[in-house]
Amino acid sequence: MKQRIPTIGVFDSGVGGLTVLAALLKQASAANYLYLGDTARLPYGSKSQATVARYAVSSAHFLVEQGAEALVIACNTASALALDALRAAVEVPVIGVIETGATAALQSSQTKDVMVIATAATVESHAYSVACHERGMRAIEKACPLLVPLVEEGWIEHPVTREITAIYLDDLLAQSAAADMAVDTLVLGCTHYPLLRPVIEETLRQHDGGRTVRVIDSAHVTAEQVAARLGLEDHAGREPELRCYATDSVVKFRALGTRFLGRPIDGVELIDLGG
Amino acid sequence: MKQRIPTIGVFDSGVGGLTVLAALLKQASAANYLYLGDTARLPYGSKSQATVARYAVSSAHFLVEQGAEALVIACNTASALALDALRAAVEVPVIGVIETGATAALQSSQTKDVMVIATAATVESHAYSVACHERGMRAIEKACPLLVPLVEEGWIEHPVTREITAIYLDDLLAQSAAADMAVDTLVLGCTHYPLLRPVIEETLRQHDGGRTVRVIDSAHVTAEQVAARLGLEDHAGREPELRCYATDSVVKFRALGTRFLGRPIDGVELIDLGG
Repeated sequence: MKQRIPTIGVFDSGVGGLTVLAALLKQASAANYLYLGDTARLPYGSKSQATVARYAVSSAHFLVEQGAEALVIACNTASALALDALRAAVEVPVIGVIETGATAALQSSQTKDVMVIATAATVESHAYSVACHERGMRAIEKACPLLVPLVEEGWIEHPVTREITAIYLDDLLAQSAAADMAVDTLVLGCTHYPLLRPVIEETLRQHDGGRTVRVIDSAHVTAEQVAARLGLEDHAGREPELRCYATDSVVKFRALGTRFLGRPIDGVELIDLGG
Repeated sequence: MKQRIPTIGVFDSGVGGLTVLAALLKQASAANYLYLGDTARLPYGSKSQATVARYAVSSAHFLVEQGAEALVIACNTASALALDALRAAVEVPVIGVIETGATAALQSSQTKDVMVIATAATVESHAYSVACHERGMRAIEKACPLLVPLVEEGWIEHPVTREITAIYLDDLLAQSAAADMAVDTLVLGCTHYPLLRPVIEETLRQHDGGRTVRVIDSAHVTAEQVAARLGLEDHAGREPELRCYATDSVVKFRALGTRFLGRPIDGVELIDLGG
């Protein structure tokens, strides 16, 4: 019997969630995908819970109207601030990257002490701390507001990016030492950060005093967990159908998005969510 | 006879326009002020013309409904991308900071060759080049997308900020030399940049080969030109009435805004422009 192919909606404030989509296309290919980047209202990371929840719910409604039978909230900030509002607003299953990231940290960490870097709004919500605590871990979080603009400027391997990354991570390692935590895992709590993974790993090697801190990028674990949770069979080699939507310029979405998806993006449709 | 006190609406995507408001409160005190920061939809600087125009027009309508008899568009991006749309949408006079900045550059420059730093959207619009050309000058523009996040991170005098500022300005000076321009003026084409003025001036002294480049901050010239254009008499010592509105968290508006206005901000009202 042929398995029915479900349609999954993937949502982010911008193009960062395309790192999660890329993993889904590869690891959960027995589905078709809708991707919405709310680029007219980004970034969410510096805004309040009420505003983020309003934006995320209107985006989720749009994806469900387009036929999404499950939603992956690829935006850490929306997962942190709006998951309850989203689950109340739509009838389909909603999977957020904070829960999947915390589950991956649990699998990685021996000491059960983990570090998280994320946007200001995600850190202020303490959603990662709560999710880690629920899984028997301690988490220490740090907002790194300059990393997203550095990625968007394209300064991926720039000396200034190394310097800023070192400032943030040194501070985080000092805080974890002061809290007497034996951290062995760092969660990248923002979809832009995987592009800085080489710089982050190199910085950790130089700054963590010889310990080995493992870096968790929630894209791959999210794809794994989505496939498991939705019971998707493995269809190796299948090319999922994909439709993309953006609320601001599709030209910019394609130009910037290609770097995150790792391949060219064709048809992107401009939509108006009334912002 | 007592002069009637007009109400002026000042608009920005966020708190940056408070630098312009601060100058108006001081230099054009024979008016009362409404200030709107469209913080739920900021930043405008990375978005498309259509989106920026839509946001700016809805903001302008709000200020006129609240009684504004003239509008000062303190946001460079909105002035660059939406001035025509704004003038078509409201009946009151609309004054934008690009025109006032270009007029100030004309007064400052001996060589009539000027440099402009601004957001990506402002630079892509070439609004400063057009405004300078109309006034008989040549302008060379550069987008500096990291400067706003650095200011918002509070790294005003941080070594990394000096380094990034030097990278941007070196590039701009090299481009102007390659174009055979004798630049003697730099326009700060974004309301966040005045906070970096000391770093920018120090960098210019070190990097422009001994020439003296004058820095133009449009806040003061805008206030001067608003007072002249609206025929405001000098009421030295008068304390204008001020009401502030924001579309996202008023707590954040007050916290971040105080740095830009240079004094505490009381009552800020949260409004919903439907974004």
